[in-house]
Amino acid sequence: MSVMDRPIGILIISHGSPRAEANRGFEALVARVASRLQPADVLPAFFSIVRPDIPDQVAAMASRGVRRILLLPYFLYSGQHVTVDIPALLDQCRNQFPDVALEVLPNLENDPVLEDLLVERLAPWAGEDEVFPQEGAAIEQQSYRIIQQQLADWASSQPDADQIVRRVIHATADLSFARTLRIHPQAVSRGIEALADGQPILCDVNMLKAGMTKIRNEILCAIDWPEVAALARADQSTRAAAAMTHLAPRLEGAIVAIGNAPTALWRILDLTRNGGPRPALVVGLPIGFVGAQQSKRALLESDLCYITNTNHRGGSPAAAAAVNVLALMAHERNPDV
Amino acid sequence: MSVMDRPIGILIISHGSPRAEANRGFEALVARVASRLQPADVLPAFFSIVRPDIPDQVAAMASRGVRRILLLPYFLYSGQHVTVDIPALLDQCRNQFPDVALEVLPNLENDPVLEDLLVERLAPWAGEDEVFPQEGAAIEQQSYRIIQQQLADWASSQPDADQIVRRVIHATADLSFARTLRIHPQAVSRGIEALADGQPILCDVNMLKAGMTKIRNEILCAIDWPEVAALARADQSTRAAAAMTHLAPRLEGAIVAIGNAPTALWRILDLTRNGGPRPALVVGLPIGFVGAQQSKRALLESDLCYITNTNHRGGSPAAAAAVNVLALMAHERNPDV
Repeated sequence: MSVMDRPIGILIISHGSPRAEANRGFEALVARVASRLQPADVLPAFFSIVRPDIPDQVAAMASRGVRRILLLPYFLYSGQHVTVDIPALLDQCRNQFPDVALEVLPNLENDPVLEDLLVERLAPWAGEDEVFPQEGAAIEQQSYRIIQQQLADWASSQPDADQIVRRVIHATADLSFARTLRIHPQAVSRGIEALADGQPILCDVNMLKAGMTKIRNEILCAIDWPEVAALARADQSTRAAAAMTHLAPRLEGAIVAIGNAPTALWRILDLTRNGGPRPALVVGLPIGFVGAQQSKRALLESDLCYITNTNHRGGSPAAAAAVNVLALMAHERNPDV
Repeated sequence: MSVMDRPIGILIISHGSPRAEANRGFEALVARVASRLQPADVLPAFFSIVRPDIPDQVAAMASRGVRRILLLPYFLYSGQHVTVDIPALLDQCRNQFPDVALEVLPNLENDPVLEDLLVERLAPWAGEDEVFPQEGAAIEQQSYRIIQQQLADWASSQPDADQIVRRVIHATADLSFARTLRIHPQAVSRGIEALADGQPILCDVNMLKAGMTKIRNEILCAIDWPEVAALARADQSTRAAAAMTHLAPRLEGAIVAIGNAPTALWRILDLTRNGGPRPALVVGLPIGFVGAQQSKRALLESDLCYITNTNHRGGSPAAAAAVNVLALMAHERNPDV
């Protein structure tokens, strides 16, 4: 393979254990990760005790023509190894391979997923006798209190955007949205304006339509329409994508909400290119292991106004929550909306 | 506080770093976890380098009357420290505090959440040029191939139950369901039978109803019915709970599906106790930080036939997927269903 074919290598670094099973388990983990990131060049490396170590793997990648290596320390916090010892090792590697760029990615420290994991693992032994509120408003208040507490370190500089983050987490019980949600600086103002203007919401699946319980605007979901099924058969796409093409005449100025199908988001990106209709806002939160993440990256890189996120998670509850909070904000500013 | 008030203590153990910020970060993490597990007694302990260490915290808990301590090693794999050094330390503690039971919980090794986290973090640098299938069946096939690959180590001894696990993960893109789903040994057969018998499905929210796209049976969701709103006001509960009371005359032999409200699941548990109506199956997957996990634990401990899970995650897409796969199985066995 040429340098162009594999410009980047990824090393996942573990401490290394005197216990062989532990090292084999780590190597198996990296192999599974690599299989999900194909065709990327992903290898394990041990910081110490056992081989292959970091210089071994940098040399192996360099010999294959890799010229940029990203290193992810599979460590739970930024201790001495991550902040001092690994950087020192990398300096040695840089001396040996001056034409290979080495970049260290953040380790796992402070990831809300880990906090969630601990709570989930320990919860069976805690709070057995706790009394829970049984009334809707009290439950919601307590949920937001918990979320607020968990996100103390995660507040952005956009209070409106933070409201969206909190509501999406409330709807999904998934704190990782605090890290993965991306909200265009104009998303809130444009979304509120479109709702106030009576623009329709075009969505991909009926589940999302059912979840937008705060919306008084027209909600269009064409996935079940017979003409859409015919269109999907004709162009060998999904019904969710064909539905977006079918609704294209309503796209100008509308809000698009996608909670399921990456193909619907790809289709919106196609339709809006090159002088196509311009939606006011695209809430793009398709879900799944096949293309969801990539379709959202394409949305981020487009010139559309977006609310989206950066991983394979998403879903109708998340997309519905994002649109619902815009409707609540619009209503707050103008009770007629 | 008496021994009865706080029978259990929980220690989360980190390696300990010469870098003070790293240790402070860990202590802050444990404080956040503890706040979510209130009123449980949760403390950090360092395996080495810094204090408080494990003997310090065992002594502190013992002096407060704790008589059972669970220790969760916050380590990424079962290396030398987890398998040899910490057990040796605990033997010393047992000699010093013979009336305190010390139990070690599994560390983070092999948790699918970590694999997911690595893939998510690294994906922006991988697979830029990958071509994705655009056609529904091909997307679904590729998704199931990825899930199958990821769950290679997680297959249960129940192939039917595994189908439910895979479909829930396909719907949610959340591999943690492989670890958290709990499927009663008779859940599949009873669910299929109830569907074949034409029993209705009682569900808590319209989003779940909209997601049960494979169902030909009657689906009842009463959350929006005016008489239910009045009932909820009268007994100061949620509309989701009141809806279950309102639908109680249809409960005998039915399938219950809950994808949102813990209060709906608590209500089902109340209604079915002491000679109340017996649903064929309860798909109990409410979501959220307030009571969801506890309501599901109560379902697991009840005498009902269940499909549920053990953490705060859940949701309408997960519940819909579980019921949909039962319908597909029923249809496979008898195409008239």
